[in-house]
Order: sequence, then structure tokens, then C-alpha cells
Amino acid sequence: MTQKAKLGLIGLAVMGANLARNAARNGFTTCVYNRTYSKTENFMKEFGNNPHLVSAETLEELVEKLEKPRKILLMIKAGEAVDKTIEQILPLIEKGDIIIDGGNSYYKDTQRREKYLSGKGIEYVGMGVSGGEEGALNGPSLMPGANLKAYNELKPILEAISAKANGEPCVDYIGKDGAGHYVKTVHNGIEYADMQMIADVYMFMKEILCMTTDEMANTWEKWNKGKLSSYLVEITSQILRKKDDETGKPMVDVILDKAMQKGTGKWTSLSALELGTAAPTITEAVFARIMSSNKEERTALAKIYETVNLPKTDIDKKQIIDDLENALYGAKICAYAQGFNLIAQASKTYDWDVKLGNIAKIWRNGCIIRAGFLDRVTEAYEKQKEIENLLFTDYFAKALKESRAGWGRIVSTAVLSGVAVPALGSALQYFDAYRKSQSGASLIQAQRDYFGAHTYERNDKKGTFHTEWF
Amino acid sequence: MTQKAKLGLIGLAVMGANLARNAARNGFTTCVYNRTYSKTENFMKEFGNNPHLVSAETLEELVEKLEKPRKILLMIKAGEAVDKTIEQILPLIEKGDIIIDGGNSYYKDTQRREKYLSGKGIEYVGMGVSGGEEGALNGPSLMPGANLKAYNELKPILEAISAKANGEPCVDYIGKDGAGHYVKTVHNGIEYADMQMIADVYMFMKEILCMTTDEMANTWEKWNKGKLSSYLVEITSQILRKKDDETGKPMVDVILDKAMQKGTGKWTSLSALELGTAAPTITEAVFARIMSSNKEERTALAKIYETVNLPKTDIDKKQIIDDLENALYGAKICAYAQGFNLIAQASKTYDWDVKLGNIAKIWRNGCIIRAGFLDRVTEAYEKQKEIENLLFTDYFAKALKESRAGWGRIVSTAVLSGVAVPALGSALQYFDAYRKSQSGASLIQAQRDYFGAHTYERNDKKGTFHTEWF
Repeated sequence: MTQKAKLGLIGLAVMGANLARNAARNGFTTCVYNRTYSKTENFMKEFGNNPHLVSAETLEELVEKLEKPRKILLMIKAGEAVDKTIEQILPLIEKGDIIIDGGNSYYKDTQRREKYLSGKGIEYVGMGVSGGEEGALNGPSLMPGANLKAYNELKPILEAISAKANGEPCVDYIGKDGAGHYVKTVHNGIEYADMQMIADVYMFMKEILCMTTDEMANTWEKWNKGKLSSYLVEITSQILRKKDDETGKPMVDVILDKAMQKGTGKWTSLSALELGTAAPTITEAVFARIMSSNKEERTALAKIYETVNLPKTDIDKKQIIDDLENALYGAKICAYAQGFNLIAQASKTYDWDVKLGNIAKIWRNGCIIRAGFLDRVTEAYEKQKEIENLLFTDYFAKALKESRAGWGRIVSTAVLSGVAVPALGSALQYFDAYRKSQSGASLIQAQRDYFGAHTYERNDKKGTFHTEWF
Repeated sequence: MTQKAKLGLIGLAVMGANLARNAARNGFTTCVYNRTYSKTENFMKEFGNNPHLVSAETLEELVEKLEKPRKILLMIKAGEAVDKTIEQILPLIEKGDIIIDGGNSYYKDTQRREKYLSGKGIEYVGMGVSGGEEGALNGPSLMPGANLKAYNELKPILEAISAKANGEPCVDYIGKDGAGHYVKTVHNGIEYADMQMIADVYMFMKEILCMTTDEMANTWEKWNKGKLSSYLVEITSQILRKKDDETGKPMVDVILDKAMQKGTGKWTSLSALELGTAAPTITEAVFARIMSSNKEERTALAKIYETVNLPKTDIDKKQIIDDLENALYGAKICAYAQGFNLIAQASKTYDWDVKLGNIAKIWRNGCIIRAGFLDRVTEAYEKQKEIENLLFTDYFAKALKESRAGWGRIVSTAVLSGVAVPALGSALQYFDAYRKSQSGASLIQAQRDYFGAHTYERNDKKGTFHTEWF
């Protein structure tokens, strides 16, 4: 009898297929299964020359071919399909076996499933996988939420298939039950903010500076060598250079400006509201996508507001590109600060004990938000472990102080010119609100006490007070 | 035997007590009950000289004293207490009786309770009540979610006790099950935005214009005679004049700037995200309250960022107060546009058939956000019934066009000066994004297709496309 497979993988869409090839390339024999068997046959025809890839026509066969404890990775659509597949596997496996959900599942679903399966002695791992198709094949960033025992069983495979940053694998133990999917969700929330900021800068370049796409591409390319160096900045320069085969126009000019979304940005914002943690910039990015999708409304409104008056503005053309770089950098720090802060809060609420420094580490490569920036975050957390908000770290405090003036000029110019920059603007408001001891909330508390007798605290002594206002 | 009471009221905290007095004053005999009987005794000692007020020591007695179909208004804490009280009443009442929840309940709880009770033949009404203590006594704005039959039973009482605007009662049929509590929730979400905008302007006056609280009060008082005329503007001027008895300082200077919240702003934002409707300004106001409550963090950050560099700014002192008025007005229109849009979306989703014009009407008086402004909204909806977003109405389009320049100067000046104005700023971004046919989402779609093969649409032909980017 041949040796049993180290890993079972269910679901041969592009992410699943690429992860299977990745595992096999790293010497872990992987048995693949797909609901529609022809897809499995096609996969094996194309890649089955690798002896570490084997296949199964039925779930029974799959389970039979796996080494114990069995490790079954689900790469299927998040939602009901996950519950259904779990029910199908459940009668076939035994205590101690491990089911891993590698999809973008809602962390509350993962918590529910983990609770259900742990009652049956099955280890359930909710694992965030970032990096898109290419990452799945060549090394993704992996965020497994698991019991430590199950994590240790998986560790050799996960470390082998993950991306590497400075030689270190982009995977680590995150925390139990939903922790991995939660961290992946916030990763995506940050990604929404990153992308909206880039879109804000793009619109600034287009509408205010009237730059051509090639001029823009040159700037993004240059920025990618500096402090903004990152995957998203890199692909932005490549996208801006790309011409449409059919019309010869820049691709970005023929693509319809209705942004789609799949839920992770929304989940991040919902969680921020539920946990009472401020994540305004991520949320503005989610709303900006929603507004972009209302293209018909916007087009109708554009007619109504064709003649809107705007204030005067002067632009210092020499400085403006550097200012844009600073705006993007400052806003980026604030979006990451919000994301990390949110993970810290969720970790307390759900008792996950997530190490923020480790999160920054495993995002350094493989994932969509990978960036030189994350080396700085990793270093900041190594120096100042107890810190939850990046705004408190020496390195980023210095960077924010240096960025603030140019960033302010950009948001101001955009506002005066009538070009929306919701992510750059919201991040600036976040920074300006957070770095001040005094807020306008004293007036809000006075109003609440005035109309609802909700009481207030004083700044000169302890206690709860009420005023007879009228 | 004496005549039966028209209304039963459970819960004699300030809102319940004042509503009971309001109903009795209007000739509706009301039987009051409180879990702690001494509270009932005290209430009757103080107000029982009105023959329309009677009391009950037990729920049995309460139910016995009511005319059929019984109308029992719960004025108790939202949450579990409502479920418990329903269970206690349930064995005592009969089919066709009406339970009304007048608390700030979560609309999904109201939907659940309505479903449960309609199965038992009991009419369940979730009714939003706005206006605080004073409104409850002298006439609140009422938002009942009910079956039409139950609404018609209640109509004489509700119309009598409600506030009046131009002689019309500030109550109307909203829609079934959770519609009333939903509309009340969005009312409060708008209230959060209104209050944060006022706080933004207050901080602008304080930190940038260095106005004294008396100078501010004069300005708010003057504004209250113009287009900003509203309850919240009126009380703001009164609050700013009020001095602390103990220290002689302005009250607003001794109140601790940590804003509290009870959930309705959060629920509005959660719903906006769930329904995919943009409500960024309301959400920024919720996050601003959260950030204000992190006073200790802010104070620590203020030390770190004491020396931040800011760009230069010039202020035209002659124009700035008018600009502030325009900023507040423009932002207000956008916050209301978001709120009404959200109600329209929820109405479709939950099949409520809410009439937006009616909502504006019943908010014209009695409630916290009452304002001359709402007459304009009412008129706008009377002229242009089909419109969901206020930005499309002629009146507000004109107002926004007139406001935009000054509003832009205010947000720009705040940004250049380092003073956070999250609500004024977010509303401006909303306006600038919505009134443009072109957004930066074409770049976002290109990025999504680049890293995730998510495909995109084109602006020159139908279909779904994918590009080989590299």
C-alpha cells in the first residue's frame, strides 16, 4: 500500500488548486477532492505528474487516503457550503482529526463551528489565507485560529507553504477559534482603506493635477522605492501603465467605476462598532465603495450639481507630489493603527491573546497589504510590546509629525477643489481628534444632560452631575 | 363600578410618568403601574388629583381596570426587561389586546416580539418616542410601528398626546413591526450627527477663532433665527451662556469631554452597513463619541504630538462666521439625506412602505432634532414624492450649491489648523463623492482584478471582463 497523504484538500477553484500545488511542491503529499469530479480529473491531468498530488473521487476515498490525525483543508465558498461539507465529512472522520477552513468565513461562524466540533472531539481551525491566486501558489500569508495542539500538528505544512519575509515564515499561531478569521477580516478592512487612499490620490492626480496615466505611473513607481513601498503601490503603477487592447486607452479609463465588495470590509466595520473601537477610515472606505456602486445616482446628481461654486485655491506644484506621498503615508499609518487597535480590542473581548507584533510579521509578505511599512510596524512592536495603538510608537509618531503638514495641504486642496478624498480626509480627522486632550464632547455631554438628564462628569472632581439648565 | 381606563402604563421613571400625565391631561384615563409600588404611591400622591389618573398595585389589577381592547404602554428599560414584562402580562390579557413598547428598543427585537405575539393574537406596537422628559410631558414626536388596525385603535390617544406642528399632530402610521423603532433609531442617528457637527463648530470657534463662550452663545442665538433654527441650536446657545455655580466658569468648560452613548447611533450605523447604504457622517459621529471617551489615551497622545507641524492658513475673519453657518447647514442636509436614504432602504428591505414625507412631518416638533429645516424637508417631499435622497430635491440642491464654498473654506481651515471636524468633513466628502459621475473606483476594480481576478465591468459596453495584467 502506498503512503498516506499528509493533507486533504476539498475544493479545486483557483485558490484551492494553487494551495494544493504549493503543498505538493513542498513535499507534502496532498489528496485533492472536488464535488464535481471532472474538475479533479482536469486538475490531475494538468498537475498530477507531481507524485505528491493524489486525488479522490469520493469523500470516503479522501478520508481513507489521509494520514492520522487527518488534516482536511476546505477551500470552498464561505457560508452554508462550509456547514454542509462539515456535515458530510463528520461521519467519516474520528476524534483528533483536524478540519481547516481556509475561506473568508465570518469569524462568528467560525466560533460557532469550532464550538460545535470541539464537542465532538474534532479540531476546527479557521485560517485566513491572503495573497490571491499568486500568493496561494507561491506562498500566502496564513492566519490560523486554532487550539495550540492542532496548530502544532499543522505547523510544518503551514510554515513550508507560507510566504517568507527575511527568511521567517509568514504564519504564526494567532489565537483560538475565530481569531484567525478575525485577523484576516481586519487585514481586508485595512486593505479596503489602503485601496481607497490610493484611489483618493489617483483622483487628486487626475482631477486637480491633470496628470496623464503615464505620469501617474512614474510617480507611483518612484514612490514604490521609498517609504510607501508595497504590493498595492507597485500594482497601481502597473495598472496605470496598462492600455486597453481594444481602444488603446488606459485600462483605468475604460473600467467602470463601480467598486464591488465581498463582506470583509463590512465585517471589520461592524465589529468596530460592536466593540466600541474607532475605525472611521476603514468604514469610510466601505461606504465609498457603496457610493461608487450607485453610479446611476451619481451621474444624475452630477447634472444637478454641475454649477456648484467652489472656493479659490492655490497649489504649489513643486511641493504637491511630496505632499501627496506624505498624505498617503500619514493616512496609511492611521488606518493600520485603527486595524491593530481593533484586533487588540477583539483579542480582549474574545480572550484570544493575539500578539500584535506577530500579526505585523506575518503580513510582511504573501498578502495583499504586504509592504516595507510592516517591517517598521514589526520593529515598533518589538521595541514597545505593550502598545496597542501605533500612534503611541516613537517611530510612527515621528513619521506622523513629519507627514502632517503636507497631508493637511492635500486634504485642504482637495476640499477646496471639490474632489472627494474620504479615506485621506477621515484618517486626518482621526489623527487630529486623537492627538488632542480636549474634544468637543463636553458640549455633547451638556446637550445630553439638557434634553435627557443623562448627567455628566466634571474635569475638576469625581462624580456624576446634573444641571438644571432652564 | 367606575369607568375603565383608556390606557395602561407600566413603568414610572421620568418618561413614563410624564407620558401618563400627558395622557391624563388630554382626558384619557390612564392606569399606571410600577414594579416597585412605592413609586406608584408617590406618583399618585403628587399627581393623583387629576381624576384621569388611576393606579394599580398588581398587573392583574392593571389589566382588570382597562377598557377592551386593552392598551398597555411599556415605558421600561429596553432589553430583557421588555421580554420579561411581556411574559408576565401575557396570561392576563386576551386576543386583540395591544401592547406598546415605548422604549428605545432595537428594531430587530421588536420584529421578533411582534412575530411572537401576533402568533398569540396580541397586537404588538413598537413605538419610538422622542422629545426627552419635556417632550413626554408636553407633546413628544411619536413613531408607532404597528398593524394598521392597532394603529387606528391607538390613533385618538396618540394624536392627542403628541406634539403639534402647524396644528398637525407629530404622529402618523409608520409601517408594521419594527418600522417605528427603526425610524426612531435613525432619528437618533441623525441626532448624533447633528450634535457632532455642532461640536465641530464649537471647537472651530474655540480653538481657531478663540471666541469666548458668550460670543459663541450670541452667534448660536443669531443662527437660531435663520436657516439653522432648531432645538439643538437653541439649547446650544443656552448651554454656552450657563455658568457653573461653584467655579463661575462656563459650564461647558467644567464638563468632562467624554461623550456617552446608549446604542441608537451604533444601530443606525450597523444597519447602514448591513443594508449597503452610505451613512458615513452618522458613523463618523458615533466613532467621534467613542474617541472622545478615550480621554486618557488622548491626553497621553497630546503630549507626544505637542510639536506637530501644521501648514499655514489665512482666515478671512469677516466671512468666517457666515462660512460656519453654511458649513453647518450643508453638513446637516447631508446627514439628513443619509438618514432618509437609510429609512427608504430599510423600508424596501423589510417591506414597511414608509412614507418619507410623513417622517419629516412628525419630526417637525416634539423631538430632539425638531427644526425649521424639517418644514423644508416636508415641502420637498410633498413636491417630489418619489425622491429618496434629499440631494435630488430642488430646494436642497440650491441650498447645497450656496453652502458649498463657505463649507469648503471651513473644513479646509480646520484641516490646515489641526482642529478635527469629523462630521463637517465627512459630510463634505459625502457630498463631493455623490455629486460626481466619476469616482476613483475604476482603479479599485482594476486592483481587485489584478490580485484576485475578481473581474470588472467596462464603461463602453456590457459584460464582465478580466485582464491579464502581468
